Amino acid sequence: MSSVREVNPTVRRIRAPTSLQSLAARITEEIKQGGQKPFRQVIDVSSGDPHRAGMAPISFARQVLAVCFYPELLKDERFPLDVKQRAQQLLGVCRGGSVGSYSLTSCGIPYVLKSVAEFITGRDGGVRSHPEDIIISNGSQKSLKMILHLMASGEGKTQTGVLTPMPCPHTLPALLDDNGLTLVPYQLMEDRGWAVDLDELHRALKNARELCEPRAIYISNPGNPTGHVQDRKTIEEVIRFAATESLVLLADEVYQDSVYGLEKEFNSYKRVLFDMGKEYSETVELISFHSLSNALMGECGLRGGYQEVINMDPAVKTHLKDMQAPSSPAVIQQLALEVMVNAPAPGDPSYETYSQEILHSQRTLSQNAQRACEFLNDLPGMNCQPAMGGIFLYPCLNLPPKVLNEAKMLGVEPDVLYCQRLLEEEGVCLGAGCENGQEDPNYHIRLCVLAPPATLEEILARLSSFQLRLLDTFP
Amino acid sequence: MSSVREVNPTVRRIRAPTSLQSLAARITEEIKQGGQKPFRQVIDVSSGDPHRAGMAPISFARQVLAVCFYPELLKDERFPLDVKQRAQQLLGVCRGGSVGSYSLTSCGIPYVLKSVAEFITGRDGGVRSHPEDIIISNGSQKSLKMILHLMASGEGKTQTGVLTPMPCPHTLPALLDDNGLTLVPYQLMEDRGWAVDLDELHRALKNARELCEPRAIYISNPGNPTGHVQDRKTIEEVIRFAATESLVLLADEVYQDSVYGLEKEFNSYKRVLFDMGKEYSETVELISFHSLSNALMGECGLRGGYQEVINMDPAVKTHLKDMQAPSSPAVIQQLALEVMVNAPAPGDPSYETYSQEILHSQRTLSQNAQRACEFLNDLPGMNCQPAMGGIFLYPCLNLPPKVLNEAKMLGVEPDVLYCQRLLEEEGVCLGAGCENGQEDPNYHIRLCVLAPPATLEEILARLSSFQLRLLDTFP
Repeated sequence: MSSVREVNPTVRRIRAPTSLQSLAARITEEIKQGGQKPFRQVIDVSSGDPHRAGMAPISFARQVLAVCFYPELLKDERFPLDVKQRAQQLLGVCRGGSVGSYSLTSCGIPYVLKSVAEFITGRDGGVRSHPEDIIISNGSQKSLKMILHLMASGEGKTQTGVLTPMPCPHTLPALLDDNGLTLVPYQLMEDRGWAVDLDELHRALKNARELCEPRAIYISNPGNPTGHVQDRKTIEEVIRFAATESLVLLADEVYQDSVYGLEKEFNSYKRVLFDMGKEYSETVELISFHSLSNALMGECGLRGGYQEVINMDPAVKTHLKDMQAPSSPAVIQQLALEVMVNAPAPGDPSYETYSQEILHSQRTLSQNAQRACEFLNDLPGMNCQPAMGGIFLYPCLNLPPKVLNEAKMLGVEPDVLYCQRLLEEEGVCLGAGCENGQEDPNYHIRLCVLAPPATLEEILARLSSFQLRLLDTFP
Repeated sequence: MSSVREVNPTVRRIRAPTSLQSLAARITEEIKQGGQKPFRQVIDVSSGDPHRAGMAPISFARQVLAVCFYPELLKDERFPLDVKQRAQQLLGVCRGGSVGSYSLTSCGIPYVLKSVAEFITGRDGGVRSHPEDIIISNGSQKSLKMILHLMASGEGKTQTGVLTPMPCPHTLPALLDDNGLTLVPYQLMEDRGWAVDLDELHRALKNARELCEPRAIYISNPGNPTGHVQDRKTIEEVIRFAATESLVLLADEVYQDSVYGLEKEFNSYKRVLFDMGKEYSETVELISFHSLSNALMGECGLRGGYQEVINMDPAVKTHLKDMQAPSSPAVIQQLALEVMVNAPAPGDPSYETYSQEILHSQRTLSQNAQRACEFLNDLPGMNCQPAMGGIFLYPCLNLPPKVLNEAKMLGVEPDVLYCQRLLEEEGVCLGAGCENGQEDPNYHIRLCVLAPPATLEEILARLSSFQLRLLDTFP
């Protein structure tokens, strides 16, 4: 390809990432080379990456995976019996007894698919999940990519559109671009804690129908980056909306294990759909995504996830499965998923440690979210909706006009400018709201609060000095 | 999506896989459920998957990865010092010291990129490789998919075409389909041990120019599934051809570590390109692929690979890197790649064991390939070119006319019918030549010969009884 003109036009339209990650990498490298900075290291909480921030992995999971990699450890006295039994069981379902062989089917190892289906059935109070509806992939991004690629078609007015919440997960806009889909924004209601509004859905859809062919609605629940947890009534409304308007429901439920708001609970779209009766449960097309990168496992680096596919036309589903056929998902990730959905039970040797570790993560997350929200709301020029779940806070920035002018002069988004300065001056890397697709004049920043409390305090202290200095310089 | 009509037209055009894998899975399941078969288990050597066939993993790699998963093992006396040092070094380059965090850049962990570049430089006798030219992905299939997606454009006569060897790796045709590219076949010369023929390249390109816009040529060296190893003169010819015709070189060099033919050696396209002088080394666009699924590591289930990108327009390269941005490659796979390219050195505690394991694999592969080739050539109705590298044999079948008629009646490819019967009657799963893109009347089968010698003998014995019975029934 002698020039960019020859590149796939869809690829050319992928929006470029902001400069924040590369700036963070550059500063980190400068420090490593002995460069002097007003801080010892960069703390990056721009994405949901608990281990990077210092959270510990779940011991049971790591022990099982270590033994699977090196089965000689089955003889090791140091590991609890249930770790060794689980590893032996999992090695037994790998072909040739090795994590180094391909999985039997491109959707995943049948035993793991069955475990996932049993987990979902238990989670949803007995609403049956079937292994043949589960497709495992190298992470929920890849699962979503498969579905978006499957649905992509048309150009201009006939191009497939996806109703997308504003704000949305920061990885989503580029994924829509890369698959040649139109992002159809619907605003979440910040003043109602980022709730979904039915009138807004109708408005967004009506507008979109003049520009493209909307064929799906994306939902993030618990909300990334909003921290909102949808109640049952809202979910029912969204399902009815999807049913009436013939939209596929794409439910990102990656943070289903981390709801901590008072009297809040996680309701899966699948369960609510089936509680609404056959009129809905046998017709509405729903794809739900889950991942190892959730709050409590936090195994982002492993890149493993699955999707459950409900009410898809069987011939379409065959196409979906064929898409993955030349390249089955990695095996060790599949074993990690099995451990995630099939935790140690009371009485198992690992149960006590496992429960304590999970409880510790849950408490840290809940206390951090509350602490950070209160702290941010006490800062001048910042306003944060309380989160009820997920691992992000998404405060609103009231930027001084002089900062807005400077951003305009520099040709950079004001929220990106804010984050650049914060990174350069205090070594804290946050996400900019424009990455979450927001274009309105209410600027936002994004931070993951699942970190050791001492790290969170350090972040808040640095952010506070920066914010106060900023408002002092540009009153 | 209420029906297949709404599916992405490109996805609809993906050729369906043959029924062989699902038949193998069904028979395996029947045996598990107690079904009576004339064999105890299915042996599947249709794809290159050494661990599944019973080859052992490299201990050093598995030990390092186990420790990385569970760093408590750093205290363990059982592991050699160099294993622990390597694990500590690798954990040090993971953010938060955990394999559970995302990698810093979407191309891979900088330290691993540097190791890969050093390995390539060493392999190519000092021709420099640069970390910024390396992109790591979840396997060489994914690397190739990125490039194909980048190059995809147009429809009909303007659609991007890729010159593709016949036979080609069996996963390639569906990958081209899925990315909306035209497969432009060029025949390899079976009677010359599957060599590339320059006249045939020109013929194929000329024909193709009336049907699409050929913009790349795919090369598999050592050849999958042919076992051919290209000599330096051929590589020079192909490079000159690509230069003259402005084609991007896509060099699948996954089996670079397994050349065993007498007086044969592996020459990388990169090295030959640079030996040809600046006229070529500064202009010809080359992308070379390597993978953990190679012969000696054999870690297919891990799904890790990299590509080295030479002479790509910088703006195009930025697009390529942005494509992977929302979803960096899995970390544990990257660490496995580091171990692959940076083996224990003489004097290291693990060196002795490592060298013996590698030598054992190499010897098994070489002896198996020779043994199987001789055995197949002794069977009536079969003719096999000797392999010089890679892990497949690809014998030609001389099928009786009655079998061809039966296949026609059943509406199935004759080579697929042959493999189905072999699977049902003898429990051996081979690949059918049509999966490798071959449409000519010379039918072929594909088998991976990297397996323990006893397994290979079992395969050959079963294949022999089947073949003799077939020729007896249909003389």
